[in-house]
Amino acid sequence: MGPGPINADPRVLRAMSAQLVGQYDPAMTGYMNETMALYRQVFRTANEATLIVDGTSRAGIEAALVSLIEPGDVVLVPIFGRFGHLLREIAERCGAEVQVREREWGTVFTPAEIEEAIIQTRPKLLAIVHGDTSTTLAQPLDEIGEICARHGVLLYTDATASLGGNTFETDAWGIDVVTAGLQKCLGGPSGSAPITLSPRAVEIITARKSIEAGIRAEGDPVIAQPIRSNYFDLAQILDYWGPKRLNHHTEATSALYGARECAVILVEEGIPAAVERHRLHGTAMVHGLRALGLTLFGDQSVKMTNVVGVEIPAGIDGDGARAAMLGDYGIEIGTSFGPLHGRVWRIGTMGYNARRDTVLLTLAALEQVLRRGGVAVTGGSGVGAALDFYAGEATAA
Amino acid sequence: MGPGPINADPRVLRAMSAQLVGQYDPAMTGYMNETMALYRQVFRTANEATLIVDGTSRAGIEAALVSLIEPGDVVLVPIFGRFGHLLREIAERCGAEVQVREREWGTVFTPAEIEEAIIQTRPKLLAIVHGDTSTTLAQPLDEIGEICARHGVLLYTDATASLGGNTFETDAWGIDVVTAGLQKCLGGPSGSAPITLSPRAVEIITARKSIEAGIRAEGDPVIAQPIRSNYFDLAQILDYWGPKRLNHHTEATSALYGARECAVILVEEGIPAAVERHRLHGTAMVHGLRALGLTLFGDQSVKMTNVVGVEIPAGIDGDGARAAMLGDYGIEIGTSFGPLHGRVWRIGTMGYNARRDTVLLTLAALEQVLRRGGVAVTGGSGVGAALDFYAGEATAA
Repeated sequence: MGPGPINADPRVLRAMSAQLVGQYDPAMTGYMNETMALYRQVFRTANEATLIVDGTSRAGIEAALVSLIEPGDVVLVPIFGRFGHLLREIAERCGAEVQVREREWGTVFTPAEIEEAIIQTRPKLLAIVHGDTSTTLAQPLDEIGEICARHGVLLYTDATASLGGNTFETDAWGIDVVTAGLQKCLGGPSGSAPITLSPRAVEIITARKSIEAGIRAEGDPVIAQPIRSNYFDLAQILDYWGPKRLNHHTEATSALYGARECAVILVEEGIPAAVERHRLHGTAMVHGLRALGLTLFGDQSVKMTNVVGVEIPAGIDGDGARAAMLGDYGIEIGTSFGPLHGRVWRIGTMGYNARRDTVLLTLAALEQVLRRGGVAVTGGSGVGAALDFYAGEATAA
Repeated sequence: MGPGPINADPRVLRAMSAQLVGQYDPAMTGYMNETMALYRQVFRTANEATLIVDGTSRAGIEAALVSLIEPGDVVLVPIFGRFGHLLREIAERCGAEVQVREREWGTVFTPAEIEEAIIQTRPKLLAIVHGDTSTTLAQPLDEIGEICARHGVLLYTDATASLGGNTFETDAWGIDVVTAGLQKCLGGPSGSAPITLSPRAVEIITARKSIEAGIRAEGDPVIAQPIRSNYFDLAQILDYWGPKRLNHHTEATSALYGARECAVILVEEGIPAAVERHRLHGTAMVHGLRALGLTLFGDQSVKMTNVVGVEIPAGIDGDGARAAMLGDYGIEIGTSFGPLHGRVWRIGTMGYNARRDTVLLTLAALEQVLRRGGVAVTGGSGVGAALDFYAGEATAA
């Protein structure tokens, strides 16, 4: 019940245990095509260029940034948590001239602030995190695409923490490139990074395409300034996932099976139903934590559905309490990074773990741990508040 | 029965279906430590810095090269197949001044040729493929480490295709950095790249360490020329796998389970026994193919145990024959790349597929496909030669 990775859906684990098939077996290329179609639904996009990068979610981020950024490009990164710093760092390593704007952790940017920063810095690319798990908040993006389009700026966002459990609209919000991971609301293991690219992004990237000498044919162009990475060269990866099937890496078959099954499950449930499930159980958790006397962290009006931060109460050993949760009850909760390390616990309700039983068990165990840690708690208060909330929702429904 | 990926060992698939645990759960960090210890045995090394890069085998290559190479460094790449071209390409993208030497596909370099190239180019790093699946040959490396040490050159090799099925001695051969993948002799899925780094390589890499702003503490140094990739920054990855457990990516848990099980199986069997098993079944396949009248490709004195190339006979449709093998018999065999595409078939006997039944079945099916493709074959010749070979080996043993 931490901020992710979480328990995987058993269906995903079962899918991953299927025997491998060859890289160009029609069954395998068929799975690849199915996976592309499924993730178009997950990302809510018509982008043909929707596929999986073989690596963890930050592999997806780096693939997007290194393929889009040419050394010297101006990239604007609004930072409101740890993963904004990560975007800055990756963009810097890609050779970008990075401009940052920072908000205090626990807040997000207004559209006007972002537009002002665009006017001041004139970037080629705006790179911004959607949900930053470090603070539990999601940057509203529904107005940002229009602002970027008006100023001729490409828009990239990292939706690892939010996708599948929070409303996310790639096309309706006008986002050029989105990357994600499986280990949050999608209910799978870390190791696969779904990505979608708009036709405009594809055009920029394919203009930088360089074909490997070992498989180059006569007449293929040689690019003077190729993408700085081979593994993350989306121009090549698009040719591997596309009808050309030009050999690049050897697709991680088991991971592909897992990524495909995560999307199958989500599409079967329906994206709006999955978002509603995350809202329901996330809110129940919030009610329970408040009733235990805990103070929530950050601007709750923009909190993600699937994770909540609470201030660690005075007098209790935060890491000791987390160790007790794990050692005595088998439940993991997280702390956070940088300025929030040791100050905030983060508790997730996401993917397969966004369930009533997990919420109630976590609250019951936390009550015991808080009490033994010397925090005054009213017996049954957390579980009671969550149950009352569930009852109210059931009546309203 | 292609050149890899191959069928995974069912034990590996079962290991991968275990439920996830949290990133810093003592069970998880325990698995990580066990995996490091196991791969020290697989690589035949005492290197503390032995771990898994989360990505396919070329992710391991890129992690090694981008972490070792500073822009402007001279890197020497002797090329004897497609994957040598890949090393060149990745090194170029890392900003290296790459010097290449090329041998005709189907041959390898002599130690003297490599020493001469070192003297001519004075590289910081020699990057060379061990077994290049594109040609089925393995470059002998047992004398190369000593040559590199004498000239103060770092030695990197890609052992993806060979490790676990051919003799490979990281420490005894004096190799600084080795990377691999699971999808060949290790009997697992693509998606994890084992890597080992000598203390000298670790020293070079950690001198370039830059800690992410989002988790940087006061007093941590800021490096002017950090490693060009964040995802492949081995200095950071070493801190994640080491006792500091400094957060980097979220470890791909299922893939780790798989990588660990591959090594458990190999260490249980014993590395020499596994190499001998690959030799036995690889040689049986060779006898069978020759008896079917096929001509082997390349210098057989340096052929890898686990894959063999044969010239596609005149008059037969090579791709049609491969399609018949897959469609009618469920057996995949490969062609090759570049100059060998459509000229050579590659047939593997590796990992879980290095078995007597797979060899005999493949030969039986290939006989049928050759005959129907218009190639004159003597009924039972391939299977018979393989059976005779097995019988001879059993008598000798």
